[in-house]
Amino acid sequence: MTDTVISSLRREVVIGFDRPFVVIGERINPTGRKVLAAEMAAGDFSRVESDALAQVAAGAHMLDVNAGIPLADEPAILARAVQLVQSITDVPLSIDSSIVAALERGLEVYQGKALVNSVTGEEERLESVLPLVRKHGAAVVAISNDETGISEDPDVRFAVARKIVERAEDHGIPRADVVVDPLVMPIGAINRAGRQVMHIVRRLREELGVNSTCGASNVSFGLPNRPGINNAFLTMAIGAGLTSAITNPLEESVVQAVLGADVMMGQDPDCRRWIRKYRASSGAEGAEGARGRREGRRRRRA
Amino acid sequence: MTDTVISSLRREVVIGFDRPFVVIGERINPTGRKVLAAEMAAGDFSRVESDALAQVAAGAHMLDVNAGIPLADEPAILARAVQLVQSITDVPLSIDSSIVAALERGLEVYQGKALVNSVTGEEERLESVLPLVRKHGAAVVAISNDETGISEDPDVRFAVARKIVERAEDHGIPRADVVVDPLVMPIGAINRAGRQVMHIVRRLREELGVNSTCGASNVSFGLPNRPGINNAFLTMAIGAGLTSAITNPLEESVVQAVLGADVMMGQDPDCRRWIRKYRASSGAEGAEGARGRREGRRRRRA
Repeated sequence: MTDTVISSLRREVVIGFDRPFVVIGERINPTGRKVLAAEMAAGDFSRVESDALAQVAAGAHMLDVNAGIPLADEPAILARAVQLVQSITDVPLSIDSSIVAALERGLEVYQGKALVNSVTGEEERLESVLPLVRKHGAAVVAISNDETGISEDPDVRFAVARKIVERAEDHGIPRADVVVDPLVMPIGAINRAGRQVMHIVRRLREELGVNSTCGASNVSFGLPNRPGINNAFLTMAIGAGLTSAITNPLEESVVQAVLGADVMMGQDPDCRRWIRKYRASSGAEGAEGARGRREGRRRRRA
Repeated sequence: MTDTVISSLRREVVIGFDRPFVVIGERINPTGRKVLAAEMAAGDFSRVESDALAQVAAGAHMLDVNAGIPLADEPAILARAVQLVQSITDVPLSIDSSIVAALERGLEVYQGKALVNSVTGEEERLESVLPLVRKHGAAVVAISNDETGISEDPDVRFAVARKIVERAEDHGIPRADVVVDPLVMPIGAINRAGRQVMHIVRRLREELGVNSTCGASNVSFGLPNRPGINNAFLTMAIGAGLTSAITNPLEESVVQAVLGADVMMGQDPDCRRWIRKYRASSGAEGAEGARGRREGRRRRRA
């Protein structure tokens, strides 16, 4: 099966079908975080540092680092953030920018094999980002939209993903180093958004044999009890074959969804991680009773 | 697609692939509930009544009624429970017993088209339960074990399910009226229990075209945070094609898993049921911020 290996100097993370799910912490990103944006622009990286440590402590296997601040020197800020985060944690990083020069600077200072976030199916992006990925021997997130935008037809999004995978191969990047983002739409607006993602993820796995990732929080936009929706989405998507997500490990619903899905997929031997995490909690008497009833009946019948 | 229609005099419930998930309330069952067993044996059905009303209020679409009390007159008690529950609610019932004479008495007094719980792949059960199901025009839960017990090989369990479906057809029972229980094992003991169920459920849907149900709480036996495991199991199993479950609607984790899975499967138009249920709750600031960030980035790129 397809393994995508991402590394820092001291640690390797493998994204793969028969592997525990990989959580890429999303918090180091100034978009929508005014205070963080102002601090980073002013050279204050203390919050980047605390966000990095908190996410790793909460179980993030990798961290996404983004420095998208309007009018700021994004390449320099991104490079500095990458260096800082690598100096205080050993998890591998996803270097995240929509500016090719920033990706380039980030890759230049990165120690290890990075995940580049991202390339799309747009011609200009393909031909500017893929050579960079190849040059640095990195892996890349492939977002399944192109010049025509984001299609509502999951098969069109799959076709865009296929195009990116094939183009990457033309550039000498093996498909194991392409991680496809099927694009998650808000399900409150698009009723079929969940089914679309499950459908694409299954095809990515079965037909293209590539790993997948996504920004998982988008699905619940505009709905009440967003943690509940995020949890349902992640659990079901992992069941369909999603192998990583860029999400918030500081949300308990995300952690529980990922740990629970790993148990269900047989990726938590003897449920050791689940037990370690929840041993202290009291458990569910109701469920216990329920099982006793059905088991009792089955024993009687056997 | 396959629709299994179960009815009372005034209400119809349809279990089906492109339908909202059906919750069959499991609480009216004296196995493992000493007080309830003693009360029912003594002719006191007040707790049966309150359990029925509470489960329907919590969102159960159907109720399972079981009267398995050692040394008691199970056929008479089951018939009385069925009549009582039908007199106070209009949800269709699953008539649940391992004693054929009790199923028979329950079916005789039932008004509507019942779900008989259950038949197994054992010869003696097949030939005693299926004629009853046929005679009363009922539907039946088919449990995928036989004389050799419960196989750990999901393909053997699938083969048992196929045998029951074919035998039911020999008895004049259409496969739409057979709802297969793939048997859920405790995942704390059997690491692959989750994958086994997903595998069988997919085959049931794709190859046999039959609906499915299960006792969903069993999966978490012996583990801490059972609601979390039950939630992960139900969500992932619904994604794989499970169409109903015998479970406890009084547990919030079960309700949230089912409502969330219906949203993901596109079975909650405009998320109306989700919104009605969770509108009052405050939502998740963290997720909101996260979405703003990623969306912001994507907008910039577009």
